[in-house]
Amino acid sequence: MYLLDCDTGVDDAVAILHLLGSGAPLAAVTVTFGNVSAAQAAENTLRVLHLAGRSDVPVAVGGESTLDGSPTRHSATLVHGANGLGGGALEPSPAALLDEAAPELIVRLAHEHAGELRIIATGGFTNLARALELDPAIAGLVREVTLMGGAALVPGNVTPSAEANIVADPLAAASVLGAGWPVVLVPLDVTMTHLIEHDDWQRLADAGGVAGSAAAVLDGYLDFYAGIIGRRCAAMHDALAVAIALGEIEPELAPRAHVEVDVTDGPGRGRTIADLRHRYRGYAPPVDSPVRVVLEARTPLVPSLVERILAF
Amino acid sequence: MYLLDCDTGVDDAVAILHLLGSGAPLAAVTVTFGNVSAAQAAENTLRVLHLAGRSDVPVAVGGESTLDGSPTRHSATLVHGANGLGGGALEPSPAALLDEAAPELIVRLAHEHAGELRIIATGGFTNLARALELDPAIAGLVREVTLMGGAALVPGNVTPSAEANIVADPLAAASVLGAGWPVVLVPLDVTMTHLIEHDDWQRLADAGGVAGSAAAVLDGYLDFYAGIIGRRCAAMHDALAVAIALGEIEPELAPRAHVEVDVTDGPGRGRTIADLRHRYRGYAPPVDSPVRVVLEARTPLVPSLVERILAF
Repeated sequence: MYLLDCDTGVDDAVAILHLLGSGAPLAAVTVTFGNVSAAQAAENTLRVLHLAGRSDVPVAVGGESTLDGSPTRHSATLVHGANGLGGGALEPSPAALLDEAAPELIVRLAHEHAGELRIIATGGFTNLARALELDPAIAGLVREVTLMGGAALVPGNVTPSAEANIVADPLAAASVLGAGWPVVLVPLDVTMTHLIEHDDWQRLADAGGVAGSAAAVLDGYLDFYAGIIGRRCAAMHDALAVAIALGEIEPELAPRAHVEVDVTDGPGRGRTIADLRHRYRGYAPPVDSPVRVVLEARTPLVPSLVERILAF
Repeated sequence: MYLLDCDTGVDDAVAILHLLGSGAPLAAVTVTFGNVSAAQAAENTLRVLHLAGRSDVPVAVGGESTLDGSPTRHSATLVHGANGLGGGALEPSPAALLDEAAPELIVRLAHEHAGELRIIATGGFTNLARALELDPAIAGLVREVTLMGGAALVPGNVTPSAEANIVADPLAAASVLGAGWPVVLVPLDVTMTHLIEHDDWQRLADAGGVAGSAAAVLDGYLDFYAGIIGRRCAAMHDALAVAIALGEIEPELAPRAHVEVDVTDGPGRGRTIADLRHRYRGYAPPVDSPVRVVLEARTPLVPSLVERILAF
């Protein structure tokens, strides 16, 4: 059983479609801030689920504040467009948010599906950290937590050090990475290697329907990445985390490592400091850590992602 | 004209031999702490120069304290043996240290060789930072500063973040990297790819003479690296910086980048935070920074290093 915690967001929207299209059982989607405010991300999530014909999936939203009270910064306008969906105009959903707050829902579902719940988190990690505050015992109940976030041996994308989901709430990230539950960290090291190209995008746009709507959402995102990479394309960060959590992509290299988050106010704030000093001997012997850091995941994601969106 | 600032040190010793063997003009060697105390490093430097028959090279020593008063930590016993020369017993030199302190000498030589002095620094950067304090104008007089230090896209070697020469005195490193003079930073990214292997070492040991003494100095260092890499070999950090400064090795990839040093007391302390976010478009357009970060240097160093030591 899966639970997705996200901050929808263009690539979260694509990740939701990828997850729904897999047919994997989805208990709920919880929503946090990051790309946009939690409130905007919740509205976007409802619309994406409605687009996919899955308004039945329960959606709960979390708070708008970081664990340490540091200001939130939404990357929306620059990266994800004013509404977080690249300006893509998705239809409003008839469904409403749950009354239950996201952290409470996470705790409840961890108990209801004890030993079976797999959490995929593709936004800031505030909801998960708040859930751990509410009930630390969930660390022993959740089967696996797959986090899109961080940068191990590559630069960040918000600062030279920090990736967006970690720097959104560094203390929350530290809590989630240090909770003791099994974590698979899917950092920029691999997500920046799974790019949807303009030609893929054109196929979606030409197909119309759900795919056409996805293309409308993606359009500005490809423009943004043109400035990063030099051509119209875009990194499928969140969908890669979904594919890894689903077992569709088996990483070639994902060593166990101690991972610390820089929560200082220095230039490293938000850096995921993975202790990878054993790299020179092939990461052997394995480190005793519940966190695995995905460093290589070469199975192509984008072809199956595109086919899955076209199949809606 | 060259000036070497070092903390001799096993691989500094090898770097000194590589530099002397090149025949490049050497104005002086200045000595700082790092691998060992400045006093021990100075004694070691005199002995290495004497071993090479170059007791004529002026040697000056700097102070034993960091810019911010943080404690110095010498990696000697673990990595470089109790005396910093792997326990290798080199003969005492008849030469003495200059009365002039290292920072003063650096300032004087920068003026005497205005526009021509190339500094190679392979220890902590305290002497250079103190020289900049004494006379900030030297930043406009020195032709180039080649620093062995830091880690851009690889882990550190003292902490998960930090490389030894930077963490020896992070504030000094920040000063030297930010002085505005042309800097070539030679980080672990490349120095960990230039390994002297056991067979190379055996050739030195079998040859006796200067080479045999170098082998005695290197012996324990190869044992230390066996724990890091899984076989008897050792990274030639400092000699690589020398070879790059001499122009013997031309890096294939050395983008200009803004480099900040983490001087916090957090887990990133001593990290060289290089802003390499333009990597995805081939580091184009070039960044306006006087610092170049060497990321690829594939021309083999070790064969010429071994031949040069054998030729003494």
